[in-house]
Amino acid sequence: MDPEGQRTSELDEAVASTRVAEGVHAVTVSEDWNTPNGTPNGGYVLALVLHAVAQESPLHDPLTVSITYFRPPVAGEARIDVTALRIGRRVATFEAVLTQADQPVVHAVASLHDAEAATGGLQHPSPAAPSIAAPDDCLDLMAAVPIEDAPIIGRFLYRHESVPGWMTGEPTGDMSATFWVRPQDGRPIDALAAAVLVDAYPPVTTEIEQIRSATVQLTVHFRRRPATEWALAHVVTRHVIDGYHEEDVELWDEQGRLIAQSRQLALLT
Amino acid sequence: MDPEGQRTSELDEAVASTRVAEGVHAVTVSEDWNTPNGTPNGGYVLALVLHAVAQESPLHDPLTVSITYFRPPVAGEARIDVTALRIGRRVATFEAVLTQADQPVVHAVASLHDAEAATGGLQHPSPAAPSIAAPDDCLDLMAAVPIEDAPIIGRFLYRHESVPGWMTGEPTGDMSATFWVRPQDGRPIDALAAAVLVDAYPPVTTEIEQIRSATVQLTVHFRRRPATEWALAHVVTRHVIDGYHEEDVELWDEQGRLIAQSRQLALLT
Repeated sequence: MDPEGQRTSELDEAVASTRVAEGVHAVTVSEDWNTPNGTPNGGYVLALVLHAVAQESPLHDPLTVSITYFRPPVAGEARIDVTALRIGRRVATFEAVLTQADQPVVHAVASLHDAEAATGGLQHPSPAAPSIAAPDDCLDLMAAVPIEDAPIIGRFLYRHESVPGWMTGEPTGDMSATFWVRPQDGRPIDALAAAVLVDAYPPVTTEIEQIRSATVQLTVHFRRRPATEWALAHVVTRHVIDGYHEEDVELWDEQGRLIAQSRQLALLT
Repeated sequence: MDPEGQRTSELDEAVASTRVAEGVHAVTVSEDWNTPNGTPNGGYVLALVLHAVAQESPLHDPLTVSITYFRPPVAGEARIDVTALRIGRRVATFEAVLTQADQPVVHAVASLHDAEAATGGLQHPSPAAPSIAAPDDCLDLMAAVPIEDAPIIGRFLYRHESVPGWMTGEPTGDMSATFWVRPQDGRPIDALAAAVLVDAYPPVTTEIEQIRSATVQLTVHFRRRPATEWALAHVVTRHVIDGYHEEDVELWDEQGRLIAQSRQLALLT
């Protein structure tokens, strides 16, 4: 519930924290964001941590966050300890550790700034966003193809131009995907939602029949304060070496402007 | 001096540390790696930290490292505190803080593994390395064009197919570069050297006449244990937004295999 007594969004409810001491946040890890592996989605865990950090920071727009995943969390109580590493005039940096049963689950370093104050900086023409049909002219992926049921799938709406090969049992070998995505409850896409959206899609290694992937490390760079209903996501893996693959994600707004870039290194399992 | 009394390489001398207590390393920041800004190169600072971490780790091949730069270090004494975050069977993760005059200078999180043990993992054909002439058939950049003198320039040899536009006073607007690079003293390229090499080139924003750039955050993924004399580097910036730009670097070995990928977010100053 928000202060006005309105029901808040699924994401806001799932990341809600109680500040039990300076820098210490009690949270409840929800099972509503579990992947088909039966464990909470990495993007959701990132949002949990980023939300706690934002409660401690004098600057409120995420600029960069790097998270290292030690083990999957379990549904239930957890504690997030947030420590200031440096509070600068322009950028404030924190580390945060999410702990369950006295074991570290993830460790993150996040830098926040004031995105509004940065807008006076140099602008230079960017490459164009990927070109696909508008969300209303794309197909609703979950309606088109029933897939393995997992709670995470219900959290988002996906719009694709065509059904990805792996979903029809015909993997293409092309480890990339371009699609529209948004929270299913219509929650606006801000930086917190963007942090979830960079890890809200099955690994594109599905197109080489590698379905299970465990993220070791994920870094997100937030490039502007988002304001969009749908985000256009481009996901690509180029290198699978010694069982490890990187996954690069770009998120764009409906006006074709870059919102965020992420890269993760993950291990095929 | 190494144990056999031979002179070690410039890089090994510059990152040498004395372990003064468990997890505590005394180092001397060298001015021999200063950039034209008059401050130590960010890749060198990363190597300083990574070297200290490696002294503490039971696993010795860097897998990922993310470093946040708070302020430029100064030449002279510094202290690196290394703390284990999680020592797993497959991956060991540490944080490290380099401090001078009781002020944090950089903070890094590094995960190490056993690259040899990982070689049983899945391999998949990768995109080819950029195609340029062999090092011996390229031009020696520093011989071809005298540029602003800074100690960092003497640490490496660079081989380009042609002189970059910005060096001839004719910036091209193309924020990318592909070239061969190696330590000037012939030191073999291992992961430590790779960590330096991902930040050993002027920002490619020079091609839009933006020469000064301060790194906020740099993440490196080490994709295989390197064994090469020269590394082929591809550097590209695609987005300059609100004064911030990302810089993606790939390093390849002489056999055309990917060694490392990096991305930094930096502020044009």
